Amino acid sequence: MKAEIISIGTELLLGEITDTNASYLASQLPPLGIDLLWVTQVGDNLDRLRECLERAWGRSDVVLTTGGLGPTEDDLTREAIAAMLGEELSVDPELERGLRELFSHRGFTMPESNVKQATLIPSAQAIPNPSGTAPGWWVEKGRGERGEPKILIAMPGPPSEMRHMWETDVAGRLRERLQGDVILSRTIKTLGMTEAGVAEVVKPLLSSHNPTLAVYAKTDGIHLRLTAKAKKREEAEEMIAKREIELRSLLSDIIWGSNEETLEGLVGTLLVEKGLTLATMESCSGGLLANTITDVPGSSKYFKGGLVAYTNEVKISYGVSTALIARHGAISPEVAGDMARVARERLGADIGVGITGVAGPTEDEGKPVGTVHIAIDDGRETRLALGIYPQLRHQVKRRATYHALFELRRTLVSMK
Amino acid sequence: MKAEIISIGTELLLGEITDTNASYLASQLPPLGIDLLWVTQVGDNLDRLRECLERAWGRSDVVLTTGGLGPTEDDLTREAIAAMLGEELSVDPELERGLRELFSHRGFTMPESNVKQATLIPSAQAIPNPSGTAPGWWVEKGRGERGEPKILIAMPGPPSEMRHMWETDVAGRLRERLQGDVILSRTIKTLGMTEAGVAEVVKPLLSSHNPTLAVYAKTDGIHLRLTAKAKKREEAEEMIAKREIELRSLLSDIIWGSNEETLEGLVGTLLVEKGLTLATMESCSGGLLANTITDVPGSSKYFKGGLVAYTNEVKISYGVSTALIARHGAISPEVAGDMARVARERLGADIGVGITGVAGPTEDEGKPVGTVHIAIDDGRETRLALGIYPQLRHQVKRRATYHALFELRRTLVSMK
Repeated sequence: MKAEIISIGTELLLGEITDTNASYLASQLPPLGIDLLWVTQVGDNLDRLRECLERAWGRSDVVLTTGGLGPTEDDLTREAIAAMLGEELSVDPELERGLRELFSHRGFTMPESNVKQATLIPSAQAIPNPSGTAPGWWVEKGRGERGEPKILIAMPGPPSEMRHMWETDVAGRLRERLQGDVILSRTIKTLGMTEAGVAEVVKPLLSSHNPTLAVYAKTDGIHLRLTAKAKKREEAEEMIAKREIELRSLLSDIIWGSNEETLEGLVGTLLVEKGLTLATMESCSGGLLANTITDVPGSSKYFKGGLVAYTNEVKISYGVSTALIARHGAISPEVAGDMARVARERLGADIGVGITGVAGPTEDEGKPVGTVHIAIDDGRETRLALGIYPQLRHQVKRRATYHALFELRRTLVSMK
Repeated sequence: MKAEIISIGTELLLGEITDTNASYLASQLPPLGIDLLWVTQVGDNLDRLRECLERAWGRSDVVLTTGGLGPTEDDLTREAIAAMLGEELSVDPELERGLRELFSHRGFTMPESNVKQATLIPSAQAIPNPSGTAPGWWVEKGRGERGEPKILIAMPGPPSEMRHMWETDVAGRLRERLQGDVILSRTIKTLGMTEAGVAEVVKPLLSSHNPTLAVYAKTDGIHLRLTAKAKKREEAEEMIAKREIELRSLLSDIIWGSNEETLEGLVGTLLVEKGLTLATMESCSGGLLANTITDVPGSSKYFKGGLVAYTNEVKISYGVSTALIARHGAISPEVAGDMARVARERLGADIGVGITGVAGPTEDEGKPVGTVHIAIDDGRETRLALGIYPQLRHQVKRRATYHALFELRRTLVSMK
C-alpha cells in the first residue's frame, strides 16, 4: 500500500514555517502498514498543485494532503482536486448550514467567502472539523494496485486541526480499510538520565533489527522507541512485549510512562484515584507548571490553584518565611520546601509543589542559570530535588516543570 | 530563476525526523532572488531518487539536495545523480588523500567504505565540508531558461553540516552566479477578526501580483504577509511600505505588530517604558498567561506574580468577592473585573489582569465551552472583553491568553 503526502502552502516554500504536518503523518503511517514513498511541498498555485496531485494519484494508493482548505482566494486545494478528477464543485446544503450555525454561535455573521468551505465534489465526503471552519475531504475513486478504490484525504493545514481530524476520524477509517503487514511501535519514556547515558545502558539492544530500538531526547525526558514488523498484530505485540521487559529491567528507576502517556496526565490519574488535591507555587518556571497541569481535561477536580511569585516580596506576601529567604537565599531547597508548604496550606490542598531557581538570562544570588530546586510537600514529609539544566530560558522552564511532575508522580506512587 | 529542494532519507518518510533542512534553505532563497517552487522528500531508494532528480533537473534551474552523502550502502545520492546525468563515478585522488588524513588525524584508520565519499563525476566539483566526512557536490551542466548552465548542489543531511556548508560556501557562490531579483516579505499581525473577515476587508489587495498579499490564521491572531519582488532591495522595500500604509488604514484597530514581534514582548517593552508592574489572576487559562508573560527574558522587572484559581473557593480565598460570584456566576465580566482588581492590589502591581471562562471539555454554569471574560484593571478603570473561541481546551487557553495580552497592549498604548 503506497502512500504520498502533499503539503500545500506558499509559506512552506518561503521557509516561514517548517512542515511538521508531514513528519507527524509520516510517523502515523507505519503502524497502519502503509509505506510512505514521497512527500511534496507545493505552493498555493493551481497549476503546480494540480500537477502534483495528478502525479500522486497516478502512482500512489493513498494520497494525504494538508493545507489550502481556508476560505480565501489563495486556498486552492478543493479546486485542484476537482480539476484533477474532472468533477464539479458544488455547495453542500448541510455543510453550509453547519458552517453558518458555527458562526452565529460565536456571534458573527458568516462572511460569504466561507461558503467555499462547504463545497464538495461527487466523489468526496466531508470529514468533520470540530476545531475549525474547514471540513476535510475523504475522496474514493478509481482502482489501486489491489483493485480497491484509491483514497485521497484532504486535511486542514493548522497542525492542531489536522492532528485532531487525523486522530478522531481519519486514522480509524484508514485502519478499517487496509490489511497490510503490521508495523507496531511502542515508546517507553524516562526522566533523570542523559540521552548518551540511556544509550549506553541499552547498547546491546540497539543493534537488533526486529524489533528495532531508537533513543530520542525530548522535553519530558529520554524516550526509547521499539518498532516491530510482523504478519499479524499479535506477533508484533509479543515481540515488543518481550523486549520491553528487558528494557524495564535495565531502566526501572527512571521509566515513568509509555506511548501517549504524559506526566501531567499520569499525575492527574493518580490524584483522582487517591482522592487528593494539589496546589503549586512557582518562581522561575513562571506558571508553566500550573499551565501544564491544567492542560489535562478534568484537572479542575484535583487542582486547587497555583501561585506564581516572581519576586521575594510576593513570595513573602503569600506566606513564605522571610527568615528562610534571608538565611538560605530564595534559590535554595529550604525555600522550595517552604513554597510547597505555603501552597498546600494556603490553597487548602493535600499536596503542595514548590519550584525556585534561575531561568536566566543572567545568574541570580550567585547561582548559575539553570539551577532549580523542587519540593513536594504532602503534609508529612517533603521530597526535595535539584536540577541543573541547559541554560536556555525556555528549556529551564520546561525541564523544571517536567522534573517537578516526575518527582510528584514518584511521591504519589509511593503513597499508600 | 526556479529552484527545487530534494530532501533525501528514509528516516524522513518514517516520521523519525522533521525536515528542517528544507525550511532553512527555503528561508535563504528569497533574498537571493530565487523562487522555490517544489520541495520533495524521498527515501534511500535508487530508482525513486533518480526519478525525482530527473523531474527536478527538467523543470528547475537550481536543484538543492540534502542527505544521502554518507559512507554506507543506503547513501545513494551520488549514484543517483551520476545515473541521472549519464556520467561515471570515479575516486578523486586528492579528495581521497584528504579523507584519509582526516581519519588519521583523529587517530583512526579510514574504513574502506568511506572511499565512496571521495568520488566525483566529470561535471561535479567537491564542496569542502569542514564539519564532517562528506564533501558536497557542485554540478553544472546543460542550459537553464536564461541560457546559463543549470546548477545542482548536493549537501549533507545533518543540519549543522548542511548549514555550515551553505553559509561558508554555497550561498556566496550562488549569489555571485545569479543576478536575480530580490524578494522581500513583511508580516502584519492582527487580532480580533476571523481569517475570512480580514480577507474580506483586504479583498481588493489580494489580487495584486506584486506585492502579493496572503492571509494566515495563527494562534496569536490573523497574519497578513506582503511579498514584493524587485531588481533592488530599496525598490522592494518601498513597494512593501506603500502597501503597508493601505493595510494599516483598513485594519488600524486590530493591528498589533509585525514580523518577529510577539504580544508578550510588546507588552513587556511598554511596561518597562512606562515603569509599570503587572499581576494576573487566571481561571480557565490555568497559568498560560503567566507562563507566556514570563517567557520574555527580563520579565522579572515588571511581572510581580500570578494567581491561578481553579475553584471558586480559591478565588474567594485570594479576595474575590463572594457576593459577585453569587450574583453573576464566576464566569462573568463582573468577576473577571474583580479578579483583575484583586491581582493588582494583592500583589502590589500597577495593572491587574483577570481571566475567567470555560476551557472545557464540558460547559460550566450553563455557559458553553469557549466562553471567556477578560478584564484589565489599571486602578482607575477596567477594560472588559468577551471571547467566544473554538471549543478545544488548548485553543481556548491559547486564544484567551493572546486576547488578554492584546487588550493589555491596547490599555498600555492608550495610557499617558
